[in-house]
Amino acid sequence: MSHVYERVALIGLGLIAGSMGLAMKAHGLAGEVVGTARSKDTRDVAVGLGLCDRVTETAAEAAKDADLVVLAVPVGAMGAIAAEIAPHLKPGATVTDVGSVKKHVVEAVSPHLPDTVHFVPGHPLAGTEHSGPHAGFATLFENRWCLLITDAGCEAGAVANLRALWEGMGANVEEMDADHHDLVLAVTSHTPHLIAYTMVGVADDLRRVTDSEVIKYSAAGFRDFTRIAASDPTMWRDVFLTNKEATLEILGRFTEELFALQRAIRTGDGEQLFDYFTRTRAIRRGIIEAGQDTEAPDFGRGTSRK
Amino acid sequence: MSHVYERVALIGLGLIAGSMGLAMKAHGLAGEVVGTARSKDTRDVAVGLGLCDRVTETAAEAAKDADLVVLAVPVGAMGAIAAEIAPHLKPGATVTDVGSVKKHVVEAVSPHLPDTVHFVPGHPLAGTEHSGPHAGFATLFENRWCLLITDAGCEAGAVANLRALWEGMGANVEEMDADHHDLVLAVTSHTPHLIAYTMVGVADDLRRVTDSEVIKYSAAGFRDFTRIAASDPTMWRDVFLTNKEATLEILGRFTEELFALQRAIRTGDGEQLFDYFTRTRAIRRGIIEAGQDTEAPDFGRGTSRK
Ligand SMILES: NC(=O)c1ccc[n+]([C@@H]2O[C@H](COP(=O)([O-])OP(=O)(O)OC[C@H]3O[C@@H](n4cnc5c(N)ncnc54)[C@H](OP(=O)(O)O)[C@@H]3O)[C@@H](O)[C@H]2O)c1
Ligand SMILES: NC(=O)c1ccc[n+]([C@@H]2O[C@H](COP(=O)([O-])OP(=O)(O)OC[C@H]3O[C@@H](n4cnc5c(N)ncnc54)[C@H](OP(=O)(O)O)[C@@H]3O)[C@@H](O)[C@H]2O)c1
Repeated sequence: MSHVYERVALIGLGLIAGSMGLAMKAHGLAGEVVGTARSKDTRDVAVGLGLCDRVTETAAEAAKDADLVVLAVPVGAMGAIAAEIAPHLKPGATVTDVGSVKKHVVEAVSPHLPDTVHFVPGHPLAGTEHSGPHAGFATLFENRWCLLITDAGCEAGAVANLRALWEGMGANVEEMDADHHDLVLAVTSHTPHLIAYTMVGVADDLRRVTDSEVIKYSAAGFRDFTRIAASDPTMWRDVFLTNKEATLEILGRFTEELFALQRAIRTGDGEQLFDYFTRTRAIRRGIIEAGQDTEAPDFGRGTSRK
Repeated sequence: MSHVYERVALIGLGLIAGSMGLAMKAHGLAGEVVGTARSKDTRDVAVGLGLCDRVTETAAEAAKDADLVVLAVPVGAMGAIAAEIAPHLKPGATVTDVGSVKKHVVEAVSPHLPDTVHFVPGHPLAGTEHSGPHAGFATLFENRWCLLITDAGCEAGAVANLRALWEGMGANVEEMDADHHDLVLAVTSHTPHLIAYTMVGVADDLRRVTDSEVIKYSAAGFRDFTRIAASDPTMWRDVFLTNKEATLEILGRFTEELFALQRAIRTGDGEQLFDYFTRTRAIRRGIIEAGQDTEAPDFGRGTSRK
């Protein structure tokens, strides 16, 4: 495939940027990939693993002469990076990001950027509970969604190129606006993560009471929460601080429903419980039919069928 | 291996009993396995799949002459089955169950059983989100825990045989008392399931607002909740109705912590969020070290690393 961009700059070299670097290389999507990260450690590891062709010490240097600049740092750090790179951006360049929250990023980044560049925020719905430069792999985005935030002001050519890049890395691209993105993600990702963190926190308190039994017997459901709650604390702190409104809205609905079920348990209302548990099964079928998960029991994990 | 029991009766022929039937056959643990289920459909399927050697129409018939009787029906149905089979039990036989709640089962079953039989309740911590006779497989219990509820009154020989059976099917056996079991499982299984059901219910409401996007973009965390919340509604209704006290206790702690985090989000207390999310990571490491889950990212599901 011919290059989509001559030079790409990756600002941040963790799970997402590292995977992008490897995927771009695997599919020949960029002429050169320049990377940078806050710490020398990460920059050294990135070079060793071939996440990019070369690293620079500062974001400004990396951004210089780049046709595409990818902000791949925690959401709360995007604004400062944008301010740093703004004076060095090449006219006609595209700036994008991969942050998990979009309205805040638009508000934090846009004011810094000159009119001569195109800003097209993005969010690949792909990730694992691991982070850092060692966590990246070239196939992370295959068959996953990447959401691009576009509005009437977006230059069509800039959007088309960014779309081509993500499609080249195996992703399916959709466009939507930032508010809508933040609400949908509050449901599918942010609130579930907060809930998982909370449940794991409760278990951690109880661990002192029940010795290590909570760990030992975790396979019965709790284990899946711990995976979700093993994700990077900085990333998630920033997500909740910056998608406050939508998260609190969904959390409100969640506690309302939880209290209704709690009441059904307390009063012994088996019918209400049964009906609720039946209704929620349908959405699982939808997810499997939409190809978003395997139907194999228990994620196909653990002992294999014979 | 020589038979642990000459004749085993499986009352109920769903995921758990079906897997036991297949595992006993695979390892030659029983001379004959007789099964029964409520519906003719299930009994016919069970014979077709070889989950047991033969089926009977009633639980009473199945239990007759059995050396081990396994109650593998929803927790709320155990008492009635115990009453039905009690007059037909062979003196010296062992009765066990596989219910997910133990105190209630002890209270519902024990009063019906004659003094001439041994009652040793059990709970294999193994399962998937699928149910019914088609869901069973012989390796379900391999490397999983099976908890036996024992007290001073238990006959040592009866416990030893039941332990040998579970170990023969690949499980690791531990003994504990019923109250303790119900508290630990409220943390590791029952409350996580209720929370997952609730989150899926909230998303289901919102699905109408966001079209099918909640399903489409579910891979970001929510998907894992839907798997947990796809389990059998009857089974889970019974679990919550019969482990009411412990579930409500843990739910109370959960909402307390959730409110504290919600408040931290509202007030923008990033430090509290960060600290909480850091603390919960440790328990994940414990689970991986204890061999209770794979460290492979995203459960090793989806696209493979190259
Ligand atoms: N992980 C996921 O599942 C996922 C999925 C989709 C989108 N995202 C989004 O993608 C972005 C990156 O996530 P990730 O998982 O790739 O994170 P990561 O693996 O933790 O990597 C983060 C990178 O950002 C750098 N960085 C951190 N804080 C910084 C700061 N204050 N200033 C400058 N650089 C900083 C880090 O540098 P050092 O290594 O030198 O510290 C590291 O290279 C986040 O906005 C996140 O919301 C994540
Ligand atoms: N699934 C899990 O993950 C899991 C894990 C550990 C323990 N358990 C426990 O194991 C037990 C069985 O669960 P399972 O997953 O094997 O369930 P399942 O696949 O749904 O099978 C249940 C069996 O019980 C029969 N049954 C249902 N209601 C009955 C009633 N009122 N009277 C008589 N028979 C009835 C059913 O007969 P028909 O097919 O004819 O309706 C079926 O054969 C439950 O107590 C559950 O708490 C489950």
